[in-house]
Amino acid sequence: MTAPRPVIAVDWGTSSFRAYVLGPDGAIRDRRASDSGILRVPGGDFAAAFRQQVGDWLDERPGALVVMSGMIGSRQGWVEVPYCPCPCDLSMLAGGLKRLDWSDAQRWPGVEVWIVPGLSAETVPGLPDVMRGEEIQILGAMSDLSAEGSGKRAVICLPGTHSKWASVAGGAVTGFATYMTGEVYDLLQRHSILGRLMTAEPAAADAWFEQGVALGAEGALLRVLFSARSRVLSGALPEGAVRSYLSGLLIGHEVSAALRDLEGPPPQVALLGTPALEALYEVALRNLGCDVRRLDAEVAAKGLFQVARRLFDGDTIARMR
Amino acid sequence: MTAPRPVIAVDWGTSSFRAYVLGPDGAIRDRRASDSGILRVPGGDFAAAFRQQVGDWLDERPGALVVMSGMIGSRQGWVEVPYCPCPCDLSMLAGGLKRLDWSDAQRWPGVEVWIVPGLSAETVPGLPDVMRGEEIQILGAMSDLSAEGSGKRAVICLPGTHSKWASVAGGAVTGFATYMTGEVYDLLQRHSILGRLMTAEPAAADAWFEQGVALGAEGALLRVLFSARSRVLSGALPEGAVRSYLSGLLIGHEVSAALRDLEGPPPQVALLGTPALEALYEVALRNLGCDVRRLDAEVAAKGLFQVARRLFDGDTIARMR
Repeated sequence: MTAPRPVIAVDWGTSSFRAYVLGPDGAIRDRRASDSGILRVPGGDFAAAFRQQVGDWLDERPGALVVMSGMIGSRQGWVEVPYCPCPCDLSMLAGGLKRLDWSDAQRWPGVEVWIVPGLSAETVPGLPDVMRGEEIQILGAMSDLSAEGSGKRAVICLPGTHSKWASVAGGAVTGFATYMTGEVYDLLQRHSILGRLMTAEPAAADAWFEQGVALGAEGALLRVLFSARSRVLSGALPEGAVRSYLSGLLIGHEVSAALRDLEGPPPQVALLGTPALEALYEVALRNLGCDVRRLDAEVAAKGLFQVARRLFDGDTIARMR
Repeated sequence: MTAPRPVIAVDWGTSSFRAYVLGPDGAIRDRRASDSGILRVPGGDFAAAFRQQVGDWLDERPGALVVMSGMIGSRQGWVEVPYCPCPCDLSMLAGGLKRLDWSDAQRWPGVEVWIVPGLSAETVPGLPDVMRGEEIQILGAMSDLSAEGSGKRAVICLPGTHSKWASVAGGAVTGFATYMTGEVYDLLQRHSILGRLMTAEPAAADAWFEQGVALGAEGALLRVLFSARSRVLSGALPEGAVRSYLSGLLIGHEVSAALRDLEGPPPQVALLGTPALEALYEVALRNLGCDVRRLDAEVAAKGLFQVARRLFDGDTIARMR
């Protein structure tokens, strides 16, 4: 063992950049966030964007270990890191880390930059699935879940643009599925005939939302979507409630489909998202028969620290250099 | 009975305008089409748009009877005509016609303009549904179907932006449901992450389409949509096939949900749409166990003629003046 090296954790997704300075215990010492997601980096010059975001941090921490997760490791990112197939645990994920051959190595010779792989799974034959960035949140959350004594199976839902439903057991992600819920909601409100009916009120977990959840859970999504319009025309739905109702239709469809995929009675589902999304999903899940537990959303730093600790311990890093 | 009056039939929808001069036997003598749908009429001046499109026809036919259907009778149209509730047959629909109080009546004093109502239905409680324009196509198609001896129940599918599935029996539309299939396809290809994967090839009823139909029919639409991306990433789907596959997912979802709503074994379904859409739906329907019959798509003129004949016969018109 060498002396602890400073760790900088970076969660670099499609539309946002989040960075953390972590202490030797994993505690967050400093944080930064911007909207410099990988699709917004001019000319794809990730090295320049990275210097600009955290160059001062690197100046102050000569031997820093930087660990990144998210779309930065995709084909459109800084360097493509192949997916790790499920089941995948922490040490398998660490084994897939890729060290960046970085042009600024001369300015910061002691700094190493590592990128975490995404995960792939094919729980249903013919339906391959992928994630990048969520795997590190799941790992971070798993330590919370297992702290309460589970080698048990758990289900973690990460609602968002592309919602993920992951099954975990024995410290590994055993499989997962993606739902395009958030993206379809966004398309419908911005570009569809339903968008014209909407007022400014944000979606709320109210009675309209719950009606939407119940209808969305019945399965005929393309039909019940149109009811957002026909119910407004018939006077059965006020325009101020269209967002809540539409949100309910989509979330109800997602949650009921995800629960059908799981064997046995409705499980406890751990939620990992923004407070606003967690509030909506909690109501939908409870209405569809599940227990819910809301987790701390800032678990990416925790997961990245665990990966970094693997590197710092030397067992993985030695194998990969 | 008076002498036959010239009939001009107009199908005026959201994005298109179609007009026909009909002979006393209902045969189409002349036709015009443009993209002057009601949302593209400058300042909502429908009278000016109408003059521009068919003013010369009216000059040549002093006593013309003009019958219009479609969104021109909606709140956003020329005059709002209330929906007729299902079940609704030809005479009930004719009874709901509304005569336009038209500012050009002085230039063409003998001309009358009538607008056909849309239909409303609530076959599932809490899911009110509406159509405008399709009712006249269904009426036109029903005469073909009944010519073959059916007081029987039939199912007519009108694929499109907002696909309609109508049940007809005894000359009446007994109920219907709307699916937002075409609009969601358009949103996904123009604005979503899937659009970026698509090449220019149009959707075809090929093996990729059929795979999509089978997966879409399983119900978890928001999940299988994402597979269009993950299968490209995994190499299981060529980019040139994304349109066919996505089209299959959505049409498979629609058709299977619509069939679940109907009681009994899969019925024969009559298709009424563009040749390209009919070709896709025919394959989806056959793969999901249905017999299919493709109908002539130009049935709007036929339906409007039947309504016009009611007016011309005098029984309806006398009641409504």
